[in-house]
Amino acid sequence: MEKIPVAILGATGTVGQKFIYLLENHPTFEIKELVASPRSAGKKYAEACNWKQDRPINDTIKNIVVKSVEDSLESKILFSGMDASVAGEAETNYAEKGHIVISNSKNHRMDKDVPIIIPEVNPDHFDLIKSQPYKGGIITNSNCSTMFIAMVLAPLHKEFGVEWVHVSTMQAISGAGYPGVSAMDILGNVVPYIGGEEDKVETESQKILGTLANGEIKDADFIISAHCNRVPVFDGHTENLTIKLKSEVTVEKVKEILSTFKGIPQEKNLPFAPKFPIIVFDENDRPQPLRDSLLDKGMVTSVGRIRKGTLGDIKMTIMGHNTIRGAAGAAILNAETYVALGYLN
Amino acid sequence: MEKIPVAILGATGTVGQKFIYLLENHPTFEIKELVASPRSAGKKYAEACNWKQDRPINDTIKNIVVKSVEDSLESKILFSGMDASVAGEAETNYAEKGHIVISNSKNHRMDKDVPIIIPEVNPDHFDLIKSQPYKGGIITNSNCSTMFIAMVLAPLHKEFGVEWVHVSTMQAISGAGYPGVSAMDILGNVVPYIGGEEDKVETESQKILGTLANGEIKDADFIISAHCNRVPVFDGHTENLTIKLKSEVTVEKVKEILSTFKGIPQEKNLPFAPKFPIIVFDENDRPQPLRDSLLDKGMVTSVGRIRKGTLGDIKMTIMGHNTIRGAAGAAILNAETYVALGYLN
Amino acid sequence: MEKIPVAILGATGTVGQKFIYLLENHPTFEIKELVASPRSAGKKYAEACNWKQDRPINDTIKNIVVKSVEDSLESKILFSGMDASVAGEAETNYAEKGHIVISNSKNHRMDKDVPIIIPEVNPDHFDLIKSQPYKGGIITNSNCSTMFIAMVLAPLHKEFGVEWVHVSTMQAISGAGYPGVSAMDILGNVVPYIGGEEDKVETESQKILGTLANGEIKDADFIISAHCNRVPVFDGHTENLTIKLKSEVTVEKVKEILSTFKGIPQEKNLPFAPKFPIIVFDENDRPQPLRDSLLDKGMVTSVGRIRKGTLGDIKMTIMGHNTIRGAAGAAILNAETYVALGYLN
Amino acid sequence: MEKIPVAILGATGTVGQKFIYLLENHPTFEIKELVASPRSAGKKYAEACNWKQDRPINDTIKNIVVKSVEDSLESKILFSGMDASVAGEAETNYAEKGHIVISNSKNHRMDKDVPIIIPEVNPDHFDLIKSQPYKGGIITNSNCSTMFIAMVLAPLHKEFGVEWVHVSTMQAISGAGYPGVSAMDILGNVVPYIGGEEDKVETESQKILGTLANGEIKDADFIISAHCNRVPVFDGHTENLTIKLKSEVTVEKVKEILSTFKGIPQEKNLPFAPKFPIIVFDENDRPQPLRDSLLDKGMVTSVGRIRKGTLGDIKMTIMGHNTIRGAAGAAILNAETYVALGYLN
Repeated sequence: MEKIPVAILGATGTVGQKFIYLLENHPTFEIKELVASPRSAGKKYAEACNWKQDRPINDTIKNIVVKSVEDSLESKILFSGMDASVAGEAETNYAEKGHIVISNSKNHRMDKDVPIIIPEVNPDHFDLIKSQPYKGGIITNSNCSTMFIAMVLAPLHKEFGVEWVHVSTMQAISGAGYPGVSAMDILGNVVPYIGGEEDKVETESQKILGTLANGEIKDADFIISAHCNRVPVFDGHTENLTIKLKSEVTVEKVKEILSTFKGIPQEKNLPFAPKFPIIVFDENDRPQPLRDSLLDKGMVTSVGRIRKGTLGDIKMTIMGHNTIRGAAGAAILNAETYVALGYLN
Repeated sequence: MEKIPVAILGATGTVGQKFIYLLENHPTFEIKELVASPRSAGKKYAEACNWKQDRPINDTIKNIVVKSVEDSLESKILFSGMDASVAGEAETNYAEKGHIVISNSKNHRMDKDVPIIIPEVNPDHFDLIKSQPYKGGIITNSNCSTMFIAMVLAPLHKEFGVEWVHVSTMQAISGAGYPGVSAMDILGNVVPYIGGEEDKVETESQKILGTLANGEIKDADFIISAHCNRVPVFDGHTENLTIKLKSEVTVEKVKEILSTFKGIPQEKNLPFAPKFPIIVFDENDRPQPLRDSLLDKGMVTSVGRIRKGTLGDIKMTIMGHNTIRGAAGAAILNAETYVALGYLN
Repeated sequence: MEKIPVAILGATGTVGQKFIYLLENHPTFEIKELVASPRSAGKKYAEACNWKQDRPINDTIKNIVVKSVEDSLESKILFSGMDASVAGEAETNYAEKGHIVISNSKNHRMDKDVPIIIPEVNPDHFDLIKSQPYKGGIITNSNCSTMFIAMVLAPLHKEFGVEWVHVSTMQAISGAGYPGVSAMDILGNVVPYIGGEEDKVETESQKILGTLANGEIKDADFIISAHCNRVPVFDGHTENLTIKLKSEVTVEKVKEILSTFKGIPQEKNLPFAPKFPIIVFDENDRPQPLRDSLLDKGMVTSVGRIRKGTLGDIKMTIMGHNTIRGAAGAAILNAETYVALGYLN
Repeated sequence: MEKIPVAILGATGTVGQKFIYLLENHPTFEIKELVASPRSAGKKYAEACNWKQDRPINDTIKNIVVKSVEDSLESKILFSGMDASVAGEAETNYAEKGHIVISNSKNHRMDKDVPIIIPEVNPDHFDLIKSQPYKGGIITNSNCSTMFIAMVLAPLHKEFGVEWVHVSTMQAISGAGYPGVSAMDILGNVVPYIGGEEDKVETESQKILGTLANGEIKDADFIISAHCNRVPVFDGHTENLTIKLKSEVTVEKVKEILSTFKGIPQEKNLPFAPKFPIIVFDENDRPQPLRDSLLDKGMVTSVGRIRKGTLGDIKMTIMGHNTIRGAAGAAILNAETYVALGYLN
């Protein structure tokens, strides 16, 4: 079968590099075009990029001449890892020209007509694209911290209803890109603040778990309260969750619901789909970012320490790979699901 | 004035070393005796101890011959950094013989007749010693994570009443002693579990903020729900707090109450008393353990990011030096206050 | 083809776990037996072991009942990751009973009749086993720091003769096993000492690059002078080398010799053989342990910054994965080569 | 006695901040003026600076209005922590106007008429200023890695003559300023390259240990060969030295010479002088940056593991605080010595 040609927007940046890294040897997508800033445009990718991955750049990719946002693209599907300073307008332009922009950028996430998709959770929200005024469309994935929260809340909200959630995150440095966090700020330290992050965590889940009707999403009505911290971890966001459900539930029931949760990516056995989107640990000191972030290709949400709290709540610690399932990998699975559901035709 | 002779119990351990380190040149206490395990007893301290502090051992201390728990002690005041496996019985024995045991160990903290003292918060609880059956007495300080929570809750609880508190801790490795945490477990990692810690955090504050009447403490009636995590930080526990107060209050009012809070150690200008027990930061990325844990001799609770939450709550991040204000320094301030209040005579 | 059954000695330790981890799905070897200390013997492996790898234990392995050194073994080939405190006698016993012990332990390395094998460098030294008085035999690989030095020196020594070598190592914590290094000692620190390490580095290479004749190895006659340091890196030993060769040579020639070096494992395309045992970087800030230690399955010696020094010397920085190419992976490649050369029959 | 007014050039940068931090409460110098880039000029220091020290900015300093390099200065003595991109011309201009520039910048270090001073080693080189064409003068201290090497070589070179030196450095991140090194590059990693550093290490010591005669310095004639590496340590450069002396010498003799070495700063008991400039450790795992970098105010060169090598050499590990003795503290001690020797009048 012929592969589907795709382009990477923001190809030299941290997320762009991760797209290229993850799409090497992808069974259905093939990178044909790379787009980056005017400074890089016209150069071969190997010369334009300060490659920071743990495998050398693929030889084919190395020699692709980087395009600028001014150039027109042949690929229908564009993966966007563009910087937020330019993504807003650029993604809109691409959608107007007929491209399907699978974006990891935050700019359009909270637009009324743009869905935030987690394919195991709300694949029906792809239909929201029909409300978009574009010839093509824009599809986003959530913020890297939201991803794992929404994944875990989804089956619990469906079964019991979520009333409120407290979350404290301990986020990896890779989430800030490169050069990102100064070593002087984080070596042996905790920084109890990440600009704009708490707001994203407190609003995106309700949209993802909301209901699509009449071309609009009605947000889920629970409340999230977040503390976001940066810690000296390379990859993997760890999050302490305290969840108040609308009905009584045992720890065993929660474990069962989470560990058996599945969705369309699993049913259709998509290339980037983990076998189960949630893995539940019984050991009391797991999950840990260093040991567990690459489980099942980094596409898993790991959950541990599920227990009852002192406030009639359920407590647990969740962890996932912030630049794979929380960013580039999420976008790729969105694209795979989009294609598998027949939207591309 | 002649100095008061004191002994250090558990002198070769992490907390014992910190007592020795901090008491060097103390204006009123002078270390005269050191007690350690049978393996160390009979040796000079310099030979018995694997010293891990950032200043060499004081020459006088070096040559003190270590005693065992079998030996009788001349000092009235004993600072205990004994391991929990032996502290229970040993501290009781010393109290029976007439010593005042100022203990950092957990064993007797929750005993009905033993106070957990924070001198700025509940100095009246020293009177609970009168309920003890000993010729001497046992006085404890709180767990290192509890210390900073109780310090911050005290003035808020007094003014408004605390309903419930969520806390997520990010604790330094020095809290686990030496060798303590394996580098293989914590380098570039987060471990979302510290054995027994959440239970201490969830119970000690209510005793500290409780009311002493008729020789008994009636616990404060708020609820605490804790997640405790280990992070790759050397010194300084950082804690995200979400606090539900019994009445509405502005962020400005909370800042004012915390930053002006004082107690007996400040009034009496005790050697280990910080100028103010709580420092409030306005910068949105503070406090940080690397930068702020040694403020005012490491005896301060630093507080930042005070803000309203989405649940009618007040959120903030607090941080303090776990082995100074959270352990050895806390015990020393307890002893200073005990003496200053005239209990020793 | 039927797989060759093998046993793992010291199966619950750090090296033992790595053997199990690396041998999962091996095309020619199949783990049939696990041996550990009396404390573990009789238990299922999953219960006996504190598994610390980044993938869960294989289900088949989980249920293998651990044997003790008292038990007789059916496998001919034994991979030994035994602790040095017991490996000496135990490995001799196994060899006497007819087993081929492929050992990563240091105990027998400097025995006159035991070869230290790097299959790309000195596969002819396998013949030294014939000098052993055992029915079976003992084959060792080098110390984890020596491995990368000997690999790089081998082609240079052959071509030009090595006169002397200065080496400063920056070694990963995983080299010390688990729990190994205390986080209190290494977080944000350098420890300029590793017990016994400098001696190994200064003696093993001469044996490996020595000449086998008349059943004896005549050591190569160059001199090595070593500084060994521990740094806060998880996996991957980095080493600064300053090499004095016996004749003048250009940087370009050194690059060419190292980057084209190959041996029997490459010729025979063995499962654990890297495509090239040495990879030469042109970038001036490589190799780096975090980015390059897993290149080609962690079986590669990465070399960078090849340049002339101020003393008529050649300088370079080399790096390799200390628990794969420097330990368990080295032993596995030794076994593969041993079999491929027909010694097993 | 009235204090000597001084100005800080490059006051908002990393070195400038360290000057301000270290000069708080200095007995003879008082900061009166601060100079920074045009962007900062005209603002109060507290607003112009992103303060990164572990104590808050002094209140007096906070309110000083920052000047630009265009403004004339009243202070005679200027401490320069200017960025290398501007220090060259600016320092020359200040010297022409009659100021004594005590510079930590690299720009003028290798100028024929500018001395690199270590007051314990070559205080006679202050006289080189007389060869300068300026009304004032420029005095530099060495690179932060060179400092500790030159300090240790000085007494050995005087006594025995140094033939050659191999050095491998493991340098702290604070040496690169702020933001400096990206956490993505150094967390759990080693970077075997620091731009320009090896060249400085290989040339500065010979000038410092050279002989001043007829207004010129004749370099010492030994050879240094350097490898420079960045490691995840906050403060403190660790360096492995292998030294070939011109005559045979025992380890004990080396220890004695180093540990008793003293100079003018010690004789005159200057405020920033350590009691002894070199401290020798007998423990085999010291010095360590985390434990020893702040010994004697951070003004000490710590030395350990002095031993014989396999090449007729002496090996040792040295360590010192790179931003105190290796930078700002070195400049302050230079200024103190300059004044104490009567040059200011």
